[in-house]
Amino acid sequence: MAIRALVWGENIHERTNEVVRGIYPDGMHETIAGALRQDADIVAETATLEQPEHGLAVARLAATDVLIWWGHKDHGAVQDEIVERVARRVWEGMGLIVLHSGHFSKIFKRLMGTPCSLKWREAGERERLWVVNPGHPIAAGLAEKFELEYEEMYGEPFAIPEPLETVFISWFQGGEVFRSGVTYRRGAGSVFYFRPGHETYPTYHDDNVGKVLRNAVRWAYNPAPAFSALLQAPNVPVDQALEPIVERGPKLHAAGEAGFR
Amino acid sequence: MAIRALVWGENIHERTNEVVRGIYPDGMHETIAGALRQDADIVAETATLEQPEHGLAVARLAATDVLIWWGHKDHGAVQDEIVERVARRVWEGMGLIVLHSGHFSKIFKRLMGTPCSLKWREAGERERLWVVNPGHPIAAGLAEKFELEYEEMYGEPFAIPEPLETVFISWFQGGEVFRSGVTYRRGAGSVFYFRPGHETYPTYHDDNVGKVLRNAVRWAYNPAPAFSALLQAPNVPVDQALEPIVERGPKLHAAGEAGFR
Amino acid sequence: MAIRALVWGENIHERTNEVVRGIYPDGMHETIAGALRQDADIVAETATLEQPEHGLAVARLAATDVLIWWGHKDHGAVQDEIVERVARRVWEGMGLIVLHSGHFSKIFKRLMGTPCSLKWREAGERERLWVVNPGHPIAAGLAEKFELEYEEMYGEPFAIPEPLETVFISWFQGGEVFRSGVTYRRGAGSVFYFRPGHETYPTYHDDNVGKVLRNAVRWAYNPAPAFSALLQAPNVPVDQALEPIVERGPKLHAAGEAGFR
Amino acid sequence: MAIRALVWGENIHERTNEVVRGIYPDGMHETIAGALRQDADIVAETATLEQPEHGLAVARLAATDVLIWWGHKDHGAVQDEIVERVARRVWEGMGLIVLHSGHFSKIFKRLMGTPCSLKWREAGERERLWVVNPGHPIAAGLAEKFELEYEEMYGEPFAIPEPLETVFISWFQGGEVFRSGVTYRRGAGSVFYFRPGHETYPTYHDDNVGKVLRNAVRWAYNPAPAFSALLQAPNVPVDQALEPIVERGPKLHAAGEAGFR
Repeated sequence: MAIRALVWGENIHERTNEVVRGIYPDGMHETIAGALRQDADIVAETATLEQPEHGLAVARLAATDVLIWWGHKDHGAVQDEIVERVARRVWEGMGLIVLHSGHFSKIFKRLMGTPCSLKWREAGERERLWVVNPGHPIAAGLAEKFELEYEEMYGEPFAIPEPLETVFISWFQGGEVFRSGVTYRRGAGSVFYFRPGHETYPTYHDDNVGKVLRNAVRWAYNPAPAFSALLQAPNVPVDQALEPIVERGPKLHAAGEAGFR
Repeated sequence: MAIRALVWGENIHERTNEVVRGIYPDGMHETIAGALRQDADIVAETATLEQPEHGLAVARLAATDVLIWWGHKDHGAVQDEIVERVARRVWEGMGLIVLHSGHFSKIFKRLMGTPCSLKWREAGERERLWVVNPGHPIAAGLAEKFELEYEEMYGEPFAIPEPLETVFISWFQGGEVFRSGVTYRRGAGSVFYFRPGHETYPTYHDDNVGKVLRNAVRWAYNPAPAFSALLQAPNVPVDQALEPIVERGPKLHAAGEAGFR
Repeated sequence: MAIRALVWGENIHERTNEVVRGIYPDGMHETIAGALRQDADIVAETATLEQPEHGLAVARLAATDVLIWWGHKDHGAVQDEIVERVARRVWEGMGLIVLHSGHFSKIFKRLMGTPCSLKWREAGERERLWVVNPGHPIAAGLAEKFELEYEEMYGEPFAIPEPLETVFISWFQGGEVFRSGVTYRRGAGSVFYFRPGHETYPTYHDDNVGKVLRNAVRWAYNPAPAFSALLQAPNVPVDQALEPIVERGPKLHAAGEAGFR
Repeated sequence: MAIRALVWGENIHERTNEVVRGIYPDGMHETIAGALRQDADIVAETATLEQPEHGLAVARLAATDVLIWWGHKDHGAVQDEIVERVARRVWEGMGLIVLHSGHFSKIFKRLMGTPCSLKWREAGERERLWVVNPGHPIAAGLAEKFELEYEEMYGEPFAIPEPLETVFISWFQGGEVFRSGVTYRRGAGSVFYFRPGHETYPTYHDDNVGKVLRNAVRWAYNPAPAFSALLQAPNVPVDQALEPIVERGPKLHAAGEAGFR
């Protein structure tokens, strides 16, 4: 059964900026979805900011295995309620791939618990991504490095938690470095942040970038049913303890009472 | 110079529940602060929920090296603005130690990015904490294990991110296990979660628990000045690049413009 | 294409101890291989200590995707040269699953760089394995816990490096806990240690154990060609630098010379 | 009480190569020890390859809190027995700081369990070390980056296990990046690898490098007594179990017997 990917695009600069429209005439989300569709085991749809519920209705998220997120100009326009809905789906097991300027998206900051800040410079400089974890599934089929001739610079310190694994580190012409591919788990969901993708450059038409995205979708895919238990904090009654115990000592809670939150 | 610790207590059950008042007549925060004061290199003060700004005014937090957090009954009463203030101080380098039912505090969930849920049972059962990382500074001076004869059970799965390091794992009489001491960094701040401390038992009078808390304060202490740069995302102008580069390609931003957030 | 698994068994107690022979009449390796064969995408063969080169000839290892290792009574009989050969294959990308008493095998200690010691007790006590990382592929399809009614106890501290991820933690009747499922990468190869499997109990006939082993084989499988570059330390000549640089300063090495080792 | 640091130097190139002797007339180990002595809480001595037992007699190691290791030309001359002795001391809690070409030392490879290979180029190019973990104690007092105008290039992939934490990442003029400061724990001992230090350049006279080394000694210092229990695998007799259990099921071992190794 195919992996159901959903590519979320902010879809603003593609409509308001001629340069961006020239590179991504159908929107960045369509180009990204097209890259994913090159592998037959991935079915990719798209959703955008301006749609009702940003295209992320409950039923649609429930039918999504991996969500890919690109946003930049208007992170603030994403409704907090939808952000919480996406976070819950990640905790339940949906994969999440956050791209480039999505480092400042509400959903990424929500899941990281850090500012997710960085340095930046928009000068069309050369970026070289080094594979530092060659056995990681997200690096499968790549050479030891690949280059993007024109990219925006992002520089360290990148205010993220220590990654589970670092897959790519970038070198920039102007003298900076950046952890460009990092993995996390949050609840039952896997999260991958991938740096490249400034909208004035043709990054998502690049073959290596496409391969990374397809690898990442496959890596982040969790075939298990939604793990909704992670959202509860169940009391285990004494008479249902796995090993026989005798209740003793003073108590706050009456039997069967819910805990405080 | 001494480490400035601040023990934050919810201070509700100590005033409303006779059992708790009997064990902690001055409040749990005062008992915890007393345990910290056993080492001369720690100066410990206290703050409570009912105080103005919950006792966490900007200037006070700025003068705090390590914040210890105990709350249970009314996490929701902590103002969101104060939670964000505490999070920023952690990112700047303030240490944070979250105790027991604080797993559901707003600040812990904020920094973890996960539900922080778990199983629980209030039956006064035996907890045995095993040191699984004997070289970690937080385990210094402990034997390979210690026991708390009466404790509330917390059981896995504990919905937290994979810890930087796991220091303690607990065994419970009724058949559960729990990662009872786990470390994180968030921005420039170090975070330690420590499981024991149900309010109807005398946990914070225990010598081993006191030793863990003092070790944790010392481990979480970051003597560097507040690292406020982590809250910014500075543009690096092309003419100030560390290596000479020539600007090229199309641009979104005019020179010197702030980035999108 | 199927994953080529190779189950290595010490095959001593199965031939010399009647209890073990009774449970595993064809050898533990055959029972384990049988559990793997329940999934059509895994092809499982076996190898044993007494075979020439312990059944681990160069060509056979080169044709192995994931090696499963069970040994106990005579770790010392495994030739050092074969251990190095296996280590190199792991670095090149072969998966390795180490079972139970294999914590003291030469290959596991070689790859961990630690003593891999632990506490133990052979009393047929109950072990309960809790899934602490429910979204991890190795836990797919399991309930939140499973039990083995008769098992040998292994207790913390387990002298291993901090795992990449901890998947299972065990509770034992006698009061101990243990990190029973832990993951690592070493070079391009993935390593999983799984605790259960004392030879006097029918552990490898258990359905949950079989599911874990199949999940682990799939997780550890790296379809990429052998990453032999990781065994080299290539000099990058100045005139082949990716960015133009001018050689300067004093040198130890003449151009093209190999480095010291 | 001061931290007892021991700086181990190979001391070959300082005697055979005029350039190196010119920069380090008393040997690199003496320059490094001098940098450590700038802080009053560190007492630094030195040991070299050509001394009996390489200057690492049992009693001397037992009286060492943190060992610093620089070697390059003749890693093979270090006796295997001494390597094992050092490894045991690390597992017992001694800190270890491995410098530059020590990535290929027997002791580092022994503790990592990986090839520890990398790319290299000796061209006196500029290295810029970025602090990616600004709250880490090893980065205390540093700016966000520092430069070494002349250094040997080391490039990724660096075949090490995923670090506990990455503190520094280097940018090189010729287009490579490198994880230049990485931490591990092995047993009760803390390990730090720090990249800079090619012998034909004055790296160990650099102020920032000195600060990193002093910070690292302090971070790696474990004041606890030697944790020799980690080298054992004690049987826990049934009648000494922490919780009452009844022995049952078939057994391999007679009561009190040692386990297999």
